[in-house]
Amino acid sequence: MTEIHEGQKMYDLMERLFPICRSITGDGVRETFDILKEHISIQLYEVPTGTEVFDWTVPKEWNIKDAYIMDADGRKIIDFKRNNLHVVGYSTPVNKMISLEELQQHLYSLETQPDAIPYITSYYKERWGFCLTHNELKKLKDGIYHVVIDSELIDGNLTYGELILPGKTDKEVFLSTYVCHPSMANNELSGPVMAVHLAKWLMEKERKYTYRIVFIPETIGSIPYLSRNLDEMKRNIIAGYNISCVGDERAYSYLPSRLGDSIADRAALNVLKNSHPEFVQYSFLDRGSDERQYCSPGADLPVASVMRTKYGQYPEYHTSLDNLDLVTAKGLQGCFDVYKDCIELIEQNERYQVTCLGEPQLGKRGLYPTLSTKESGRLVRDMMNFIAYADGEHDLIDISNLIGVPVKELYPIVQRLMENKLLRIRD
Amino acid sequence: MTEIHEGQKMYDLMERLFPICRSITGDGVRETFDILKEHISIQLYEVPTGTEVFDWTVPKEWNIKDAYIMDADGRKIIDFKRNNLHVVGYSTPVNKMISLEELQQHLYSLETQPDAIPYITSYYKERWGFCLTHNELKKLKDGIYHVVIDSELIDGNLTYGELILPGKTDKEVFLSTYVCHPSMANNELSGPVMAVHLAKWLMEKERKYTYRIVFIPETIGSIPYLSRNLDEMKRNIIAGYNISCVGDERAYSYLPSRLGDSIADRAALNVLKNSHPEFVQYSFLDRGSDERQYCSPGADLPVASVMRTKYGQYPEYHTSLDNLDLVTAKGLQGCFDVYKDCIELIEQNERYQVTCLGEPQLGKRGLYPTLSTKESGRLVRDMMNFIAYADGEHDLIDISNLIGVPVKELYPIVQRLMENKLLRIRD
Amino acid sequence: MTEIHEGQKMYDLMERLFPICRSITGDGVRETFDILKEHISIQLYEVPTGTEVFDWTVPKEWNIKDAYIMDADGRKIIDFKRNNLHVVGYSTPVNKMISLEELQQHLYSLETQPDAIPYITSYYKERWGFCLTHNELKKLKDGIYHVVIDSELIDGNLTYGELILPGKTDKEVFLSTYVCHPSMANNELSGPVMAVHLAKWLMEKERKYTYRIVFIPETIGSIPYLSRNLDEMKRNIIAGYNISCVGDERAYSYLPSRLGDSIADRAALNVLKNSHPEFVQYSFLDRGSDERQYCSPGADLPVASVMRTKYGQYPEYHTSLDNLDLVTAKGLQGCFDVYKDCIELIEQNERYQVTCLGEPQLGKRGLYPTLSTKESGRLVRDMMNFIAYADGEHDLIDISNLIGVPVKELYPIVQRLMENKLLRIRD
Repeated sequence: MTEIHEGQKMYDLMERLFPICRSITGDGVRETFDILKEHISIQLYEVPTGTEVFDWTVPKEWNIKDAYIMDADGRKIIDFKRNNLHVVGYSTPVNKMISLEELQQHLYSLETQPDAIPYITSYYKERWGFCLTHNELKKLKDGIYHVVIDSELIDGNLTYGELILPGKTDKEVFLSTYVCHPSMANNELSGPVMAVHLAKWLMEKERKYTYRIVFIPETIGSIPYLSRNLDEMKRNIIAGYNISCVGDERAYSYLPSRLGDSIADRAALNVLKNSHPEFVQYSFLDRGSDERQYCSPGADLPVASVMRTKYGQYPEYHTSLDNLDLVTAKGLQGCFDVYKDCIELIEQNERYQVTCLGEPQLGKRGLYPTLSTKESGRLVRDMMNFIAYADGEHDLIDISNLIGVPVKELYPIVQRLMENKLLRIRD
Repeated sequence: MTEIHEGQKMYDLMERLFPICRSITGDGVRETFDILKEHISIQLYEVPTGTEVFDWTVPKEWNIKDAYIMDADGRKIIDFKRNNLHVVGYSTPVNKMISLEELQQHLYSLETQPDAIPYITSYYKERWGFCLTHNELKKLKDGIYHVVIDSELIDGNLTYGELILPGKTDKEVFLSTYVCHPSMANNELSGPVMAVHLAKWLMEKERKYTYRIVFIPETIGSIPYLSRNLDEMKRNIIAGYNISCVGDERAYSYLPSRLGDSIADRAALNVLKNSHPEFVQYSFLDRGSDERQYCSPGADLPVASVMRTKYGQYPEYHTSLDNLDLVTAKGLQGCFDVYKDCIELIEQNERYQVTCLGEPQLGKRGLYPTLSTKESGRLVRDMMNFIAYADGEHDLIDISNLIGVPVKELYPIVQRLMENKLLRIRD
Repeated sequence: MTEIHEGQKMYDLMERLFPICRSITGDGVRETFDILKEHISIQLYEVPTGTEVFDWTVPKEWNIKDAYIMDADGRKIIDFKRNNLHVVGYSTPVNKMISLEELQQHLYSLETQPDAIPYITSYYKERWGFCLTHNELKKLKDGIYHVVIDSELIDGNLTYGELILPGKTDKEVFLSTYVCHPSMANNELSGPVMAVHLAKWLMEKERKYTYRIVFIPETIGSIPYLSRNLDEMKRNIIAGYNISCVGDERAYSYLPSRLGDSIADRAALNVLKNSHPEFVQYSFLDRGSDERQYCSPGADLPVASVMRTKYGQYPEYHTSLDNLDLVTAKGLQGCFDVYKDCIELIEQNERYQVTCLGEPQLGKRGLYPTLSTKESGRLVRDMMNFIAYADGEHDLIDISNLIGVPVKELYPIVQRLMENKLLRIRD
């Protein structure tokens, strides 16, 4: 039976975060961080409205208290308090009586998914609107409606969080996830809850690398983050992952970094090919999250993505159906395990070099199994094959790929050979 | 309906050139140049008989006024004036009465194509002969025949033509075609008429590159041309095409340069894959025209070929059936368009570099389409994909291949990004 | 009919060597060398017991005079003199009466091959034992048996042989084979008899390269050989082959060097693809002989293997069924021819460079065939294709692969072009 202990904890955390109305700025994001900080000591940063970051400008801060559409009978037929997807993100305030005809200019639904509330935003053009299921839309009758959006767009701040876990070297592994979507589960809450639990796991672990873990609004968060930290990031980051859509059970997916040959890519491919060979391999042309910024020309960071079902590839994506039924503890656990394997591999990946010339004599060191079985024969063969390629040129990932043995089976071999001083790490 | 305006002009020019009896030297070539010079100002060069050029020697000049075989009844049963293929090229003069038996030693026909007159030459061994259809051959009766070839082989010159169209840089694009075949249409007249019309098009065009366009006899023309110009050609030519067999409608073909990785190759492949994905891809082992000289070791010029049906690959090749019925205005137009696309791509091909870090904000510059349609979505996606690879390392051909967008759709993107100063050309 | 003259000589030599009881040390090896030295002047070396070589120690010397199992009726039911495989290699001496039950602790047979005596050794753990067919095993009845092994394990020497055939340069081709198995034919005697005959052929041949030919016990012989000669071997060896399992008729096999791109690999692949395209291509992961030492990290010698049916891949392997019926003169001759072809190619392999610019004019040099036939057309085409790639960058193997012409057909072309000073060897 699969162990889903961590998956359940992630799921529980997601349940608490789910009802909050996040957007790219505002108190919903801060409220989210209050909860995340119960688990890990995230450092928060605020970037003022109007700050110019690369080609972009930090927008106004958006906050919303309430929103509804009331019919002539005084019934709230659409109510933000029931589902925060009902309001177009960044809607300007409104409070007026309007006809159905006028109202319909401000309504968004999905004819092909009549039970789903779509997720719509309008960050860079001021407008207001409501989202509802197509079935709700069809029920609307002629008449006068009272529309209320109690929101504000003010000069404020964009909030992001950062956690640095120092390692033995300044070289870094980078994990990025986003906190800017209202009540949706796979995209996005699976991301931050996984980042929190990876951070907790890393905190209890001996770390060769320093870990830079960031929680940002997508796009408009990664851009100021990059603009503030680019030199250091370019100098130090050897591998990174954008953590998004990591919670359903339907698939494993891999989306490469722009050039596709980084350690992050090689580790992810090695792990997935061995543990989930049926994984879906995307092209960088299929990208759609913060790797768009991290991998952009000039930034050129080695950031790949390992996901369950990728954003845009499942019918519930960006609708109210991407909810707590879609994501499961088991789904989260599966991707958590893959990320741990990738990080473990990045930590262990070295160019190993055998210390003797010719093959070592395993027997005199007790490295031959005492009982000769099919399994022990395979162990010896794997050890000898590892040694044959431990030439200080091929790294652990190369050797795993060359000899067709998962790295998890190579770690104990490396350890035994190191203990016997038959192996050293090449500088 | 396909536009064949230029194709018709090429066809009309070919009709005028068709009856002339060309060979590798002689007045037929000069007469051909007289007509071509009505269109473009080709500079003519004469290379004297006996000139040593690389491993070769320029042969005697051959001219012919008349030739026929007359039967005992005084009828010209084979007459050079009806079809100049009837005489073996470079035939020595003859005027005598001979028996059918002796005559047959000098006759060439094709048993498998009984209605075709074959095209035969004997440049480097002195002999005389007549070519005729196999049906004609079979009709010959015993008796005495009067054979007349009123030709001369004299110390004279080999004639070739050159047109240089200066551009903004000394770097050159090289176009080569040959004028040495008598009345045949696809191989060869489609070549020189296309070169003339490409020259006319280039003359009216702003040119980054200098264009070197040569009209030469095949093999024995390209060798002296190379020997006279090699240093300059090696220094300047960045891409070249040998233009031959560009007039029928049956296929598009590509034959690479020797190493196959030049800009000429990459442009041709990119254009053909997008516009005529069914094109036939040959190997350099299938070569057979002047790329044999241009790409030879030590010359190493980047010369590829784009053709319609390749020489040697169609049944009418090197017979009287390669005539004005085989080549069409539409066939010529198709290959003309491909060559224009290749040249345009070579002109536009640069390593572009995006000027901002992170993705640019398209919206504030009006680069997002105002109307969101499926088409506009594709445009934005193509633009963002172009930007993602505009890193100053990948050139335009690379990016087109990487993102799967034809260069014609990238040109306006490049232009808009350049206008918005979001892109620069890397030196 | 296939010429098997050399194959028959190899077979005859193998017949003489077959009965000798070889092991990794001892008089059986020396007796083998006495016979080999009738053919070639092998220099013998003795490495004392206890010598430390890389990670290994040279073991005690083992000699055996007699061994048998006698039943209660005084019949030798198992007799070393009938087949030396009956004794476990390196068995300690024994002479006692034991019960069947105790005896069975020391017996080895193959249930799945009931007529085969298995080949078993125990070099690094002292024990004694007998091998017999499973049918013999099943016939044993309860009772007392007299077991005798008249062997000794003493401080002595490990014996190996070396033959150096000087060439025009110090650069070397390395041939290694092993002499450490008792009466088995494909693995191993086919190896040393082929090495002897390759040496004889090389001795009568003009040699560009120096040849280092060694006859060693497997593993524990290659390790001291490497330890004594490594610097010189690394400096000089450009290609090498481990010669093993070269005598049956069922297959041709190729096992690459560790990195797979040496001249030894490229020559073997070129020869096999042209002469035996059905050959079996193994991976270095399938290795199992002295290439394990020669190709080990730090040694990094370019040693590949060309075999008939590879060790471990045929049912008779390491049993008494690997006998003189399995190996044939024809089988030996086939692999002998392949090795000669590989060596010839290594000798001839150069980066050739055509001396003229443009294509040479073959006609004036009589390089065009006087009779134009299909065959002569192919010869001219092959010659022109060879010239097209004779650019001083591609070597002969590259060109053969590129133009699809076996090197045997290129040798006369190279010779004619060299004679005509159209070709030179690039330094």
